[in-house]
Amino acid sequence: MPLMTSWVASANDATHPFPLNNLPYGVFSTEGDDPRCGVAIGDMILDVTAAEAEGLITLSDEPLFDMPFWNPLMEEGPAVWTALRARLISLLAEGSDEQAKVEPLLVKQEDAEMHLPFAVSEYTDFYAGRNHAFNVGTMFRGPENALPPNWLHIPIGYNGRASSVVVSGTDIRRPWGQLKAPDQDLPAFLPSRRFDIELEMGAIVGTPSDGPITVQEADDNIFGYVLLNDWSARDIQAWEYQPLGPFQAKATATSISPWIVTKAALEPFRCDTPPREFELLDHLKDCGPMLYDIDLAITMAPAGQPATTIARTNYNQMYYSAAQQLAHHTTSGCPMNTGDLLGSGTISGPTKPERGSLLELSWGGKEPLTLDSGETRSFIEDGDTLTLTGAARGDGYTIGFGECVGTVLPALENPYSR
Amino acid sequence: MPLMTSWVASANDATHPFPLNNLPYGVFSTEGDDPRCGVAIGDMILDVTAAEAEGLITLSDEPLFDMPFWNPLMEEGPAVWTALRARLISLLAEGSDEQAKVEPLLVKQEDAEMHLPFAVSEYTDFYAGRNHAFNVGTMFRGPENALPPNWLHIPIGYNGRASSVVVSGTDIRRPWGQLKAPDQDLPAFLPSRRFDIELEMGAIVGTPSDGPITVQEADDNIFGYVLLNDWSARDIQAWEYQPLGPFQAKATATSISPWIVTKAALEPFRCDTPPREFELLDHLKDCGPMLYDIDLAITMAPAGQPATTIARTNYNQMYYSAAQQLAHHTTSGCPMNTGDLLGSGTISGPTKPERGSLLELSWGGKEPLTLDSGETRSFIEDGDTLTLTGAARGDGYTIGFGECVGTVLPALENPYSR
Repeated sequence: MPLMTSWVASANDATHPFPLNNLPYGVFSTEGDDPRCGVAIGDMILDVTAAEAEGLITLSDEPLFDMPFWNPLMEEGPAVWTALRARLISLLAEGSDEQAKVEPLLVKQEDAEMHLPFAVSEYTDFYAGRNHAFNVGTMFRGPENALPPNWLHIPIGYNGRASSVVVSGTDIRRPWGQLKAPDQDLPAFLPSRRFDIELEMGAIVGTPSDGPITVQEADDNIFGYVLLNDWSARDIQAWEYQPLGPFQAKATATSISPWIVTKAALEPFRCDTPPREFELLDHLKDCGPMLYDIDLAITMAPAGQPATTIARTNYNQMYYSAAQQLAHHTTSGCPMNTGDLLGSGTISGPTKPERGSLLELSWGGKEPLTLDSGETRSFIEDGDTLTLTGAARGDGYTIGFGECVGTVLPALENPYSR
Repeated sequence: MPLMTSWVASANDATHPFPLNNLPYGVFSTEGDDPRCGVAIGDMILDVTAAEAEGLITLSDEPLFDMPFWNPLMEEGPAVWTALRARLISLLAEGSDEQAKVEPLLVKQEDAEMHLPFAVSEYTDFYAGRNHAFNVGTMFRGPENALPPNWLHIPIGYNGRASSVVVSGTDIRRPWGQLKAPDQDLPAFLPSRRFDIELEMGAIVGTPSDGPITVQEADDNIFGYVLLNDWSARDIQAWEYQPLGPFQAKATATSISPWIVTKAALEPFRCDTPPREFELLDHLKDCGPMLYDIDLAITMAPAGQPATTIARTNYNQMYYSAAQQLAHHTTSGCPMNTGDLLGSGTISGPTKPERGSLLELSWGGKEPLTLDSGETRSFIEDGDTLTLTGAARGDGYTIGFGECVGTVLPALENPYSR
């Protein structure tokens, strides 16, 4: 599929993240107005809430865009998702005879503030990148025991905290927590010293389910994808995570990029999961290409300094697809709802500059990174800005995700010394 | 505090679970009508939604009870909680001059179907009963290493799945899952063979928070308590839980009792947590009696047979209170919302007949229980009905919780053999 051209001129550039082929969904506001639904096209946002109110989009008897969330559309299911995309293309394509009606509904992205694009029902985080699991396992248990025995048979995951999901651009406050230094006998309550990122993709459940579903049904139920940074306090995690998994280490914040890139936009970039060491059981078997070829990168910028790219990798490095993760999530009968968010797990490639966390990049702090400015980093320092980017590169066009960015602020005063 | 008498005669019995001292909040429907809010008094339910509509309860400019959930009241905060309780007491107390107006709004409990009393925002399950943690740890790691090193310093918890919370009376379908028998090299996808209960109390967050809160603030933010059964597939759990904790083993269902017993009703039953082996850090220090003296019991009834009481224990056996758990939950900055549900963790006393799970009662299946009928059980068999009950026993009155009951149905046909 080549670049589809739009009468919004800025969208017709081979490297622009938001061509007509993309049409990602977000929630925005301008100058303190109420947040509303919008779709990115080039440097502009089409105000979808206004377009519906003016009768340019009519998909349902009830309004779908009168709340600042995309959940109502997601609940409508794939036929309506397809209808909306077709309608938006007809409104925005070069030669559209409705350009005059649509033009007044465009807002410049640079004038807009972005909000969470959907109400997060529940959040699950997986651990389904093999290189990441191997790296972390090697640091903790040595290379012979790096992968837990179950790892090649099921996508290991844990439930995270939906209330902690924030939109890109939200500042992240360094957390306090209980932690125990290796040379101490007893734990102490301190600000985290090993605060980290995790480069992930997030898959958003569109269609709910109530009982076990197949991998194909799971793929059908997914609405779209975002970039996701699962901020992680490694020192809190090390002390708390046995035997029931990470808890407060992961509850400070999880940032997502502001634009939901739909499954439809990513269709040309589907790719296969890797060869399997063990054949997967029926409920997890691959039934088509369900990963995506998406280039990913992380930059780090100390306060007042330019950003250094510290890692580049690709979503195609995952061992399990989001569809396999979602199918596994339902095996026990667990109901899944519109707005559930599934983190892929940290995405690391096989070589050092492809690692998706500082824990791996600095090898647990033993091999600090050197930034372009000459500063070194093992973990995040106060004032550092971390940015994730993602792009699928097509034939003469790009499907971008926007940025997933957060700046780490100093810890509060001890909240219990009041 | 003695028994408070009501003009609803059935409420004035020293052993009745719902005297005027209690006034627990539920959601009910009759004969297919829409669910609405109600308060239990003796054998009756006062239709609170109707009482508000008729002007007998006026706490807010906006209606608080026009949705079938108690969340809007919870969001109002402690002053309104207190005002509602005072108003209900004045309407229902013996000698009330409004009896004639209230009487038509009473419904017999036996005619009502109960629903989830609140919308569960997120669900967290703790592991904060020392006897349970010691028993399980002993089975898995021996008595010397039974308690993980962190256990005496923090209430260990993990995020569960809110979508799986169901009201008492809902049948529970035995789950399928990936599991690996000890004598097998590879996992298989099978119905769980070690399906179990966990006797817990659930604490409900009423007032939201956005950042670290103290134990006292946490106690203030809790709205009330329910009985909670965290259905657990032990064989799925054993295979999946390393390294990130239980996931599908706990996602089939969590049952709660239908009546929210308010903190106000439980006030006379406050008791202290046990002596500490290690002094707790400041953010977890006890600041008053925040556990409750609540007698708890489990019965088991095979299909068509009478119930056998298989365990009796008390909520005062916990090592950490719900207030300490909630405070710990916020240390990293995790936002907490109205409707968040916190499971206490399995409540076991020190002796064998006080154990709150079949895993402990049958010691991992090695010491099957004998029921009154002569049948034996290591774990749950299809058709078994498990019932939790709870009661705080005052001076001439009882604060009951109602039942938390579920019958286990056979597993579905293999959902992936279609």
